[in-house]
Order: sequence, then structure tokens, then C-alpha cells
Amino acid sequence: METITIKLLAERLKLSTATISKALGDSHEISDMTKKRVFELAKELNYVPNAYASSLRRNKSKTIAVLIPEVADSFFSIALNGIEEVALQKGYHTLIYLTHEKLEREKAILKELLYGRVDGALMSVSSETDSYEHIVEFGKKLPVVFFDRVCHEPRTAKMTTNDLECGYLATQHLIEAGCKRIVMLSISKSLSIISDRSEGFHNAIADHGLDPALCEVINCGEEEEATRSALMELLQRDQRPDGIIATVERLTTDIYLACKDLGISIPHDLKVICFSNQASAVILNPSLTTITQPAFELGKAAATALLKRLKNPGLDLAEESQVIPSVLNARGSTATE
Amino acid sequence: METITIKLLAERLKLSTATISKALGDSHEISDMTKKRVFELAKELNYVPNAYASSLRRNKSKTIAVLIPEVADSFFSIALNGIEEVALQKGYHTLIYLTHEKLEREKAILKELLYGRVDGALMSVSSETDSYEHIVEFGKKLPVVFFDRVCHEPRTAKMTTNDLECGYLATQHLIEAGCKRIVMLSISKSLSIISDRSEGFHNAIADHGLDPALCEVINCGEEEEATRSALMELLQRDQRPDGIIATVERLTTDIYLACKDLGISIPHDLKVICFSNQASAVILNPSLTTITQPAFELGKAAATALLKRLKNPGLDLAEESQVIPSVLNARGSTATE
Repeated sequence: METITIKLLAERLKLSTATISKALGDSHEISDMTKKRVFELAKELNYVPNAYASSLRRNKSKTIAVLIPEVADSFFSIALNGIEEVALQKGYHTLIYLTHEKLEREKAILKELLYGRVDGALMSVSSETDSYEHIVEFGKKLPVVFFDRVCHEPRTAKMTTNDLECGYLATQHLIEAGCKRIVMLSISKSLSIISDRSEGFHNAIADHGLDPALCEVINCGEEEEATRSALMELLQRDQRPDGIIATVERLTTDIYLACKDLGISIPHDLKVICFSNQASAVILNPSLTTITQPAFELGKAAATALLKRLKNPGLDLAEESQVIPSVLNARGSTATE
Repeated sequence: METITIKLLAERLKLSTATISKALGDSHEISDMTKKRVFELAKELNYVPNAYASSLRRNKSKTIAVLIPEVADSFFSIALNGIEEVALQKGYHTLIYLTHEKLEREKAILKELLYGRVDGALMSVSSETDSYEHIVEFGKKLPVVFFDRVCHEPRTAKMTTNDLECGYLATQHLIEAGCKRIVMLSISKSLSIISDRSEGFHNAIADHGLDPALCEVINCGEEEEATRSALMELLQRDQRPDGIIATVERLTTDIYLACKDLGISIPHDLKVICFSNQASAVILNPSLTTITQPAFELGKAAATALLKRLKNPGLDLAEESQVIPSVLNARGSTATE
């Protein structure tokens, strides 16, 4: 099979290789008519750009990286669908990198990415990420857009949901259901989303005059075993909580199982609300009250902003930031019977 | 900051750049002692290889691709963890590509990958994949290893679970629980895993003398809406099934919700068993009987075989194939009360 090169396309169309290259790169220097001719022939001959060569030459890979902590959480799997919808439509490849909630891994991936694999990155930081230099360094060379879990620096587009307000709403929902001893469970001290949700939580506790000594934010940590023992300890205290707000989806199963083991009835003895996008929330026993985040929309917005910037290098990404609200879905786990 | 190059490492260690390069590439031509010295200095100086340059030079990217249909299914999110555990340990990068169950997307990704991004690929084919030429073509240039959803061609390592046997066991489990009208729900006609599970299903129906006219395999298709209407139609038939085997995790929520809407009680009126790895199976209402697949182990085995081959190009990958058994976990959804 003959290899289809830019040179061959140029010969066939009686154009220079530079013109073909620019046309394929969608350069504004080339007329739409010429681009059309080039694209049609390229398609007809099944031309595939040599990613490495073209990236060295044009310094563009038509590829974006997505750094996320994990894919087991349905927030991220849904957000990926939003990202890929936009990327596919614009002819971009998406490379997905998992940090597994490790700062060191996040640093290594960003460092590797600086060597030409991608044109930019979308990221939701790991739960360990408490310093931002690696992202600032990356941002000096390639555009980066945050979604959901953001950093104060670098200055760029941040696609978030109304976490502070949702922390407040979740707490208020439990207070209205009669809870007096409410605990918020987190997995990290440094994550933006957790500190926002915590702030909303503390504001609601203060506004409604609950005893702050009985209402705290507890860090369960990342390890499954640690989470389980923290939960068992919490639920066997003398003044155990009568309301729990889980800030991470995966805590749901642990909470339900711990309650089952300890004979604690949800929602009678303990009301539970979870920041979660899992479809199975409605078929749990009891069905789970959730703060449902706009995962698909956040992914889509982040990808849209990054691709807009890649097309227009003068764009100020920070101006593209959006806050897309979440929704509280009240279900059986917070029912007042 | 000074850029750390191979040349600089060579100067510091008083070795040739070729030696440094070979040492970093773990060549058998270089002694372990020299490799150790090179690695230690490289680490100390924070040397990062230029992926593009080194890939052009050595035709090795130290990167593997993983092609999977989606990440919303917990099988794939867990398998990814198995793959990344091995890759990280061996110093390989993992690029994750989602086919979104589309054959065209799968073809496009493999084609793109031939242009030098990766050293090999792990894949679980899309539900649309009914022709293999694109994989055979890829396999001629780069090694590919299948896991879970495999193809007859090309000849290579296939990491699978005992799908045929599990199809049989699931069916037998429902028959022993008293079911006479059992339906298996699938999402594809071409997937290896589905045809194996179907064969086990039909064998069990025949062995136990159930009426095959009342026991069929139904393809619900890929679209959510189509799945829901197929389910509603099925559950409103005159002789509606008294047992369902769902071959895909995401069908669980649809089945439970359809039963709720139609006032069908699980397990009293209908027993349900699902091929699923979701942690929440135990907290559903009722808890879900599952065939739990060795997702982590399959991912790990696939990555191990591919990296073994990359180290030893003479390796016959087909010899590395493994079948790792799944486990039936009986729970509330198939209880006989």
C-alpha cells in the first residue's frame, strides 16, 4: 500500500507542501476553497497524519490530556463523556490519565506531557494535591483548564459547581428533617470542593443554631480500610450522629454496610445524603438522597474552553470560568416517615 | 533551569551518549552496574526523556494504549486499576482510549496509534465490533493483547473469564430457585462474552428440560431508551419471565426501576442475577445476586503479558492466554424466601 504523504497530496493538487500542511492545519492563511480541495483528496486517499512528525513540525498534536483521580466514581465517568463529546466533534483525540489520587503521579504525568504529546490539558486534581507549582509550571507552556476540583493557581478557566451552596443546602435539608448531630465526611483536607462544602456546612450549622461541638467535618482518608474503621468508630460513639453528609460517592456503600452491621436504621436512626451521580441511588435500600452534580456539563464546558483557546491563543481562559449548579434530590434516606 | 540531556549525563559519568541511551533503555548490552550509575544520576538530576525525540530514535515510547468501551461500567474501572498497577511498576505510561461502544471509533483509534504514540495495546472490543481486519492490521505492526471482550483474530494473548460456564451457572442458579421462564438480556450480537454466556444459558435450559420457547436471549441494544422500552414490553407479556440474567451491569437499575413501576416484586415475582462488579450490589433493595468477574486480575494479566512481550519480542503472545474464573455471589434478588 502506497503511503499517502503531504508531498503526494501536493503533487496531485499542484500546490506546495507548505500550503497542504497549512490547509490540513486549518490555517487562516489558506482559503476555504483550497482547504476543501485538500480535505477532500486527503479523505479520498485515506491520508493519516504522522502524529509525531506533524507534532514536531507544527507543534500541535490535535490531542488533549484529561487528568482525573479515578474512573470508579461516576462523576468522572460521566464528565469524560462530556469531554469526549466535544473533542470528537472538533476532531481532537483525548488521552485519559489517572492520578489515583496521588500528587506524585499527577506531577509525573504533567512533566511527561510537556514533552509534546498534547496541546493542552483538562484536570481535576488529586485529593493529595496541596501545592500547585507543578500545574503553574505546566500552565506556562501549555493551556490547562480545571473542572470540579480546582486550584487557586494558575489563573485559568475553572469549571465548578456551587459546592459552598450545596454544602449549605445538604446540611439544611438534614436540619429540616430533624437532625441535630450532623457529620460531614470528607476524603481530603486540601481539595477545593471539600473546603467549599465544609464552609457551607459550618454556615448552615451556625445559622440554624445547632451545637457545633456535635457537628464536625471528619476526614476518612483515602484507604478503604481506614474509611471503614473511621465510620465504625463514628457510629458507635455515645452521641453518634443522626445525620451524615458524604462528600464522595464511594462512601455510600461503606455507610450503608456499617449501619447494617450495627443495626442502625436509615432513615429512622440516621439520615444520609451523598454527593453522588450514581444511577443506582434510586434502587438502594433505602433510596439515597443525593446532591447530583452536573458532571456531563462540567466536562463539556471544560473541553469547550480548552479547544476555544487552542483555536485562539489570545483568549483569556480565566474569563471562560463557569459555575454550573448541582441539584438536591430528596429520597428515602432522609425521609421523615 | 538547566535542561538535563543525555549528553549532560554522558559528560558527568564519562560515558558515551550511546551508552547512556542504551542504559536508559534497559539494553542487555549494558552492564547492571553501569545502568545503576546512569539511573541514579538521572534520578538525582531529575532527567525526563524527551518522549518524541526518544520515540523517533528508539522507536519506543514506553507507553501502552488501553482501548475500552466505557468507564461507567465498574468492570472496566477496576480492570484499569489492574493494568495501571503493572504499568506503573514497570515504568510504562498508560493512555486510555474510550470507544464508546463504536466500531468506527475503535478503528480510528487503532489507526492513529500506528503512528508512533505507543508500543502496544490492550483492548476489550466494542459491542459493535463484528469484523476484525482493523485489529489484525494493527497486530501486524504492534503487539495487541485482548482482555474480557476478545476476537478470534489476530492470534495473540486473550485474558478471559469462564463466561460459558458462568452463563450455565447463572441459569442453573435460577432454575434451582424455581424459575421456569428465564430470559438472558444482552447488548450485542457479536461480542464473544455474550455468545459464550448465551451458549451456557442454552445448555442449562436444555440440560434441565425447561421449555426453550419460554427461555430466550434478548438483545436490548445500546441506547438507554431502547433498553427501557424492551424491558417494559418484556415484563408486561402474558407469560412474563420469572427469572432474568443481565449480562451487563448497567441493566440492573433499569430492571429494578421497571419492576417498581409495574409492581413486580423481586425476588417474589421475578428473580434477578447480574454480571456485575458494582460495590453497591450488597446495598440494593433487594441486594443483588451477581456473577463477579476477576476484573482487576484480568487487567493485570493482560498488562503483564504485553510488557513481557515488549521486553522479549520473540515471545509468542498466544501462549500467554489465561482464563480466570468468575464467582457467583447469591444474594436477596434470587432468594427463595
